[in-house]
Amino acid sequence: MKGLWLENNRLQLKTDLPIPEPANNEALVRVLQAGVCNTDLELLRGYYPYQGILGHEFVGIVEKGPQHLINQRVVGEINAVCGECRFCLGGSPTHCENRSVLGIVNRNGAFAEYLTLPVNNLHKVPDNISTDVATFTEPLAAALEIQQQIKIGENQRVLVVGDGKLGQLVAQTLALTGCDLLVIGRHPEKLANLAVRNIKTGLENELKERSFDIAVECTGNPAGFEIARRSLSPRGILVLKSTYAGKLTLDASALVVDEITVMGSRCGPFVPALELLANNRVDVASLIQARYPLIDSLKAFNHAQRRGVLKVLVEVSS
Amino acid sequence: MKGLWLENNRLQLKTDLPIPEPANNEALVRVLQAGVCNTDLELLRGYYPYQGILGHEFVGIVEKGPQHLINQRVVGEINAVCGECRFCLGGSPTHCENRSVLGIVNRNGAFAEYLTLPVNNLHKVPDNISTDVATFTEPLAAALEIQQQIKIGENQRVLVVGDGKLGQLVAQTLALTGCDLLVIGRHPEKLANLAVRNIKTGLENELKERSFDIAVECTGNPAGFEIARRSLSPRGILVLKSTYAGKLTLDASALVVDEITVMGSRCGPFVPALELLANNRVDVASLIQARYPLIDSLKAFNHAQRRGVLKVLVEVSS
Ligand SMILES: [Zn+2]
Ligand SMILES: [Zn+2]
Repeated sequence: MKGLWLENNRLQLKTDLPIPEPANNEALVRVLQAGVCNTDLELLRGYYPYQGILGHEFVGIVEKGPQHLINQRVVGEINAVCGECRFCLGGSPTHCENRSVLGIVNRNGAFAEYLTLPVNNLHKVPDNISTDVATFTEPLAAALEIQQQIKIGENQRVLVVGDGKLGQLVAQTLALTGCDLLVIGRHPEKLANLAVRNIKTGLENELKERSFDIAVECTGNPAGFEIARRSLSPRGILVLKSTYAGKLTLDASALVVDEITVMGSRCGPFVPALELLANNRVDVASLIQARYPLIDSLKAFNHAQRRGVLKVLVEVSS
Repeated sequence: MKGLWLENNRLQLKTDLPIPEPANNEALVRVLQAGVCNTDLELLRGYYPYQGILGHEFVGIVEKGPQHLINQRVVGEINAVCGECRFCLGGSPTHCENRSVLGIVNRNGAFAEYLTLPVNNLHKVPDNISTDVATFTEPLAAALEIQQQIKIGENQRVLVVGDGKLGQLVAQTLALTGCDLLVIGRHPEKLANLAVRNIKTGLENELKERSFDIAVECTGNPAGFEIARRSLSPRGILVLKSTYAGKLTLDASALVVDEITVMGSRCGPFVPALELLANNRVDVASLIQARYPLIDSLKAFNHAQRRGVLKVLVEVSS
């Protein structure tokens, strides 16, 4: 089969990859479409060691697996877990110490004609969600993880730093909590996409307010971290939603004096993400900026790496 | 009056300072005894800008103030607050945006014959608490702040990094929660002080375990931070209890992947601290390593700066 293979910081479209054989409790999924994520770009830059097929945001059709899923359209949680370690048993399966992660750690990913995942990872896509929209389930779930970690209510002042793919989804999910939300970014045209949904927006350099209860850092660069940090009230919470190239330097004494909390946030729950998409509570279609067929997936990556680009999709089959 | 004055990174014992005049709602306190804290040493090194009398851990006798406090032995909360700002009104008075802080920010401190503080800051010391022991109220309250911020229960695995003054108090207060506690440090003789209280201890370089739910960093150096960080399970909490000289560098991506929380922690509640001391639930007397009269307070500072020294007291009057 065809697949986009990463090896030694180089991507190549391979055409002679074997169709994977699902293990026990796994399903074989024919990929319909996959989205390019910033994590893919970081893997390509070599920030984490990985060799194999990239891609972890996908919609596909089950070809082998349990009867109730055969020929169904599915999305899939990306952590394939052991079910037996202390994290699996302790209610934190996404932190399974024996996990593989689709297209990220020890498991071939979604920029290919086929992938395999444990049956338990798969969620049927409701018929009223288009494949385009369903491709956003995984990043939308990751945005929802913030609300799993912190109770966010109406009286809270929340800042989102970053108007990119991640910031857009985080902002839309936070807006649903009724909190007092502001999104800042560098791109007026992207902020406009939120403003039409009645979300308050502003340019980064205009931020005067230093009194947010929660700031969510969605830029992945140290400048964004600094803005988020400085925006917080004492006892505020800084949510780190992006990974960073290299190390981050911070003033730890100021964290102590102001009793700031810095909290990392990763994968989130698929069920509420699918519910939001089915009920049209978030708009993801407007984030799609380009589509490429799998054979042009190298072009898709080039496009996704351009400054300011939102979601680039790779169409695998139909 | 005499007082230990800090100016331009230099300490001097002044003998001609005016006895302070208490403002409205303030009391005049004759200082009996004061303790040297790491924050004092950091102020001396110039990590924070401050000019005035140092010292914020004290016991004194009220000489001017409301009738019920006159001639009473008191300890005092160090943040003098406005009572009107959003932090005061919002239940976080220690973060008052108009605060002065005894011996730290815009308010002369306790290494002097007299100090003033708002009457509301003062707590009568129960008769069965000696002045030596009561001098630890402020740092003990700071240790208890951790339990105000995080619920710590019996099933949790908690690591304290550092066997110094702060680590000793933090460890003793955490031990009372019944959590599964380990304290690591570099000084067998200080760890022994905890071991006699049935607290598990170990040397820093022996730490193998990487599965703590909570790690409390009490060393104030980046190496201690690294040890605390690496000891945590995914979804673990790193409590920063010390201030740091300079910046701290950390791997923010790993915080995201492991969903780690880093939480600054500062001043804590005096009432439970006094209760613990009154009921002999913590041992602080064994932490006292030297005493100097106020006129020799420069020597007290020299002593406190020696590596591995625990609490040095300055006796002001009797
Ligand atoms: Zn597991
Ligand atoms: Zn105030």
